[in-house]
Amino acid sequence: MTHKIAILGASGYTGAELVRLIAQHPNMEITALSADRKAGLSMAQVFPHLRYLHLPTLCKIGEIDFSQIDMCFCALPHKTSQEVISALPSDLKIVDLSADFRLRDPADYKKWYGNDHAALAQQGEAIYGLSEFYRDDIRTARLVAGTGCNAATGQFALRPLIAAGVIDLDNIILDLKCAVSGAGRSLKENLLHAELSEGYHAYAVGGTHRHLGEFDQEFSALAGRPVQVQFTPHLIPANRGILATAYVRGDAGVVHDTLCAAYAQEPFIEVLPMGEVPSTRHVRGSNFCHIGVVADRIEGRVIVIAALDNLTKGSSGQALQNANLMLGEDETTGLMMAPLFP
Amino acid sequence: MTHKIAILGASGYTGAELVRLIAQHPNMEITALSADRKAGLSMAQVFPHLRYLHLPTLCKIGEIDFSQIDMCFCALPHKTSQEVISALPSDLKIVDLSADFRLRDPADYKKWYGNDHAALAQQGEAIYGLSEFYRDDIRTARLVAGTGCNAATGQFALRPLIAAGVIDLDNIILDLKCAVSGAGRSLKENLLHAELSEGYHAYAVGGTHRHLGEFDQEFSALAGRPVQVQFTPHLIPANRGILATAYVRGDAGVVHDTLCAAYAQEPFIEVLPMGEVPSTRHVRGSNFCHIGVVADRIEGRVIVIAALDNLTKGSSGQALQNANLMLGEDETTGLMMAPLFP
Amino acid sequence: MTHKIAILGASGYTGAELVRLIAQHPNMEITALSADRKAGLSMAQVFPHLRYLHLPTLCKIGEIDFSQIDMCFCALPHKTSQEVISALPSDLKIVDLSADFRLRDPADYKKWYGNDHAALAQQGEAIYGLSEFYRDDIRTARLVAGTGCNAATGQFALRPLIAAGVIDLDNIILDLKCAVSGAGRSLKENLLHAELSEGYHAYAVGGTHRHLGEFDQEFSALAGRPVQVQFTPHLIPANRGILATAYVRGDAGVVHDTLCAAYAQEPFIEVLPMGEVPSTRHVRGSNFCHIGVVADRIEGRVIVIAALDNLTKGSSGQALQNANLMLGEDETTGLMMAPLFP
Amino acid sequence: MTHKIAILGASGYTGAELVRLIAQHPNMEITALSADRKAGLSMAQVFPHLRYLHLPTLCKIGEIDFSQIDMCFCALPHKTSQEVISALPSDLKIVDLSADFRLRDPADYKKWYGNDHAALAQQGEAIYGLSEFYRDDIRTARLVAGTGCNAATGQFALRPLIAAGVIDLDNIILDLKCAVSGAGRSLKENLLHAELSEGYHAYAVGGTHRHLGEFDQEFSALAGRPVQVQFTPHLIPANRGILATAYVRGDAGVVHDTLCAAYAQEPFIEVLPMGEVPSTRHVRGSNFCHIGVVADRIEGRVIVIAALDNLTKGSSGQALQNANLMLGEDETTGLMMAPLFP
Repeated sequence: MTHKIAILGASGYTGAELVRLIAQHPNMEITALSADRKAGLSMAQVFPHLRYLHLPTLCKIGEIDFSQIDMCFCALPHKTSQEVISALPSDLKIVDLSADFRLRDPADYKKWYGNDHAALAQQGEAIYGLSEFYRDDIRTARLVAGTGCNAATGQFALRPLIAAGVIDLDNIILDLKCAVSGAGRSLKENLLHAELSEGYHAYAVGGTHRHLGEFDQEFSALAGRPVQVQFTPHLIPANRGILATAYVRGDAGVVHDTLCAAYAQEPFIEVLPMGEVPSTRHVRGSNFCHIGVVADRIEGRVIVIAALDNLTKGSSGQALQNANLMLGEDETTGLMMAPLFP
Repeated sequence: MTHKIAILGASGYTGAELVRLIAQHPNMEITALSADRKAGLSMAQVFPHLRYLHLPTLCKIGEIDFSQIDMCFCALPHKTSQEVISALPSDLKIVDLSADFRLRDPADYKKWYGNDHAALAQQGEAIYGLSEFYRDDIRTARLVAGTGCNAATGQFALRPLIAAGVIDLDNIILDLKCAVSGAGRSLKENLLHAELSEGYHAYAVGGTHRHLGEFDQEFSALAGRPVQVQFTPHLIPANRGILATAYVRGDAGVVHDTLCAAYAQEPFIEVLPMGEVPSTRHVRGSNFCHIGVVADRIEGRVIVIAALDNLTKGSSGQALQNANLMLGEDETTGLMMAPLFP
Repeated sequence: MTHKIAILGASGYTGAELVRLIAQHPNMEITALSADRKAGLSMAQVFPHLRYLHLPTLCKIGEIDFSQIDMCFCALPHKTSQEVISALPSDLKIVDLSADFRLRDPADYKKWYGNDHAALAQQGEAIYGLSEFYRDDIRTARLVAGTGCNAATGQFALRPLIAAGVIDLDNIILDLKCAVSGAGRSLKENLLHAELSEGYHAYAVGGTHRHLGEFDQEFSALAGRPVQVQFTPHLIPANRGILATAYVRGDAGVVHDTLCAAYAQEPFIEVLPMGEVPSTRHVRGSNFCHIGVVADRIEGRVIVIAALDNLTKGSSGQALQNANLMLGEDETTGLMMAPLFP
Repeated sequence: MTHKIAILGASGYTGAELVRLIAQHPNMEITALSADRKAGLSMAQVFPHLRYLHLPTLCKIGEIDFSQIDMCFCALPHKTSQEVISALPSDLKIVDLSADFRLRDPADYKKWYGNDHAALAQQGEAIYGLSEFYRDDIRTARLVAGTGCNAATGQFALRPLIAAGVIDLDNIILDLKCAVSGAGRSLKENLLHAELSEGYHAYAVGGTHRHLGEFDQEFSALAGRPVQVQFTPHLIPANRGILATAYVRGDAGVVHDTLCAAYAQEPFIEVLPMGEVPSTRHVRGSNFCHIGVVADRIEGRVIVIAALDNLTKGSSGQALQNANLMLGEDETTGLMMAPLFP
């Protein structure tokens, strides 16, 4: 059976990445692509690398007949997303890639995003889309909220450790190195090649990055008490990739064992041998996450490093993985391609 | 039926690219991987991005039982390749990615490569591996010689025009912009990131690049008389891609029509609408070649631009395409993946 | 004596480059910096790399007392520049970096830029700012028009050859490879790091690039008859640099001798030994232009390659060189810094 | 008076950077350049960007008449450096850029570098070359040991805080992002453009990086008791730059005030306004170090970020600054050039 797919917001990077992935999926067919400001254009005009595919012309959301759609990926900006989704048919299966349904508590949402949530009903039913940890809920969900790409990377490094109680919850530092496609196709001076290339810097320093809302929610729930991490992202002159360097306290051997056990059956999460470290270049374009553990020279200090591709495992690959679960497909279908190196 | 595959010289970039592609092929299984200096290592140690695959340990060529192999890809350096291939079973199907069997005339080989050819019998039977133009011969070939990556790009732009006699044969200039992976995994100062990044230059200027041997052979054969092109490659700070800017003389409309007609049925060659130009970023990681045609402001001058990924369509993708033909598979099997952008 | 300097349009890349250079000049002092949309900001807010300098706050043009200014650099967009300059005091020494005063014939201006020229008087008095060739006129000029950066590079490669009549005037092809800062600090999708990095393409193909107006004007004047070149620029993923590969017809030895003779006394133009080729990385951040000559394998064909930094020798360095001439300073003052490599 | 300068090991990046800087110095003249394996070549052959300078031909060290030298920069590999320096005239002023004389205790040297020190006498007299903190000793020193580039960056962020006792000495984490030129001009696979570009990773994780020897020595001396920091460097796809993100505990306001006070008179160290963060792109090619301070959302946690250019302030710029001190020149002579941006 072929699932009919709609992608809303197809003119951004995550939209293009969804098309790249779904084009290889044996049981999915792209039926509708929306992009309000680019409606009427072909996808080849917006993304020439997709010109070999026979894709529907970009349209406005209102032009889509959702009764014919089996799965709707929503790759719209946050805030727009909640407005759009609340107006879609209430039985339509949706994977949302925006930030709008990640936080369960409306007060948390307002704290991090500044506005009242405009789709409380949908917020209430949404499942947090970190596939490896919410798999069972996702299978039966109608609406899945894709995670932040930074939030996913940090959680892959830390969730099993917090759940198992093997690290000190009050001493967790996440230093992230993020490639530029995570900022989207937005026209900002600091994203220009001439500005970004050959230089790098920290941003949203001091605990202001919105993905902290997800860390707080998820880590506190896991621990059964409030957990706050320090989180400093850095913008790196590369197109794809997130490298999370987590500084934690515990026993390195136990940390490594805990991660190995947690991910032993996971097709996409690879824990490297003790002492080895991952590189973003070895997961580029793939749905894999590589995790390394190293003991620091200071007793009781451990460095856990996770690497993934922000557009694939960090957003669109995760979205497809969730859609597979929701549609009864094998979770890995269309997602086992090799990384592109060099 | 699953074809058993051996890759000789698996520790280089074209070897890794072959593994990446074959891993997605439904009817191929990698049975042996050789890398003389790295024998005994796992592929994951040499190429950590391939660690998710269950691959044979790297071995020496002598350890392979070729009676169990259906197709052997040979990704060795030139000169080594002819020595190795002349000692392989004479009925083994081989796609060679080196330069050793591209030139049909031993004198041409000596002229461009400096040494006498050590495998004249195999040289005699080898078919030139430009799939789109030697398809029928490749289907029944035992030994196929993969083309040079620059040679492939230039030929995609020019072969139909020379064959149709629609351009001036004495006024062809090929200005190529080549990404660095084409130079292989070789330890040279000018390939270091600190040397190459943020700068670019021409190399092998004036007609000394060895791929000219292929241009001379192929274009002269097509034209039925000697044809010499000017060819200047430039090294660009990017990892994958070749952009060939061809300056020719003729009528732009006729040139475009001729290319459109020649490639109308080709799954991997896309001729863009008149006046549009390709970019390497839109073919990265894929087996596609994009071609654009623009009329110059000077009457009778035309610019033809071709873009492809040197590691995929320029070498390993081409090799797999040829192997598909030789094994009776559909030519496109395992090769229809989308480019990776951004 | 210290010359008081104003820079109009100081918030763009050429403005910042002017500040970088003038900061090292022993006899210049920056007295006013304008940037209409950023008026009121400090230069450190707009360009943090300049924060160590004590610079005037950015202001609106109208706030500058030009009676106190000895030299005004105008780094405004074309069309704005002619409007602003026509309203400035008629005895103010000006080096304009825009395209507005490069073309002497108003009809040529309209042909390439689309609008009628709004400052015909100033256009009439402006001197074309290619320092090495208009040095004497520049010394006494009031208004100097900085050249296009591509136009400068092509002319350094070709002017002596056209002037000496040693190349075929009807067979000149200029294939340029241009770094991205030449496009300015403009917010366009194709200038984003995620779009540009790791890919490259041709643009303004077929004779539509406006710098052709300069080539036509200058080469025709030199030759004493109309000369049209083919010119195809390519956008390269690097921040600074232009590499011009010129395909010409003549005798390589004569071409090399002619260039050596023409530039023997020039402090900034270096002709490399016969057969050597330049790289943009070896002129980055400097006011040097390196030129190489190679004979092609085809008799009578020659490749001439020129490399310079588009922001320095291609615009702001040239501007300072011209200002030195206009102010009676040594032409090289403040400009002999080494390239930055790596 | 013009000081006669020798540079030993001039064919590496720090050697080339020394030449770049000294070429602008009004009172220094390069008299001798050594590079054992490249002796006999001109500097222009090894570093074409320096071809405009009239420099001595590269020679072997033994060919230099050190009696004519006022200042010798030694840019040799560690271990070689101690052998060479112990054989030089004992009254020759030397700035050594290697690791050989940074650690005062021979046992520390052996611990971090593996071999017994072969020049104990010189080790005893060497002054640690962090100009801002050892200025007085450097002025009268004969032999100054340039610091590690990572070590310099971390110390600029932390020394005043440790000295003032305003941070918790047992909770210091240094997460560094290092550009590739810090690895030198060495032929290693992981430094190739095709390997490094578009990817990044941690290295020497867990406390094995040799610059920790310097941190331990310096921070412990400052604190008057043993201090151990956690230090994780990451290799970033850029040519120049180190960004040190320091996670410390204290009061952010006090931290900022302490740094402002410490560096108020320093010409090269700029403490940004509270809450602003530096970028490597804003110090590239310059001798400046930018430092930012941000309070974390968690009470009592502070992030201090320092950025400098590893080849300039991190090594060759620092070396020239020290040479200025040793020769009685103004400390900033030849070093006040602006960063190169973009």
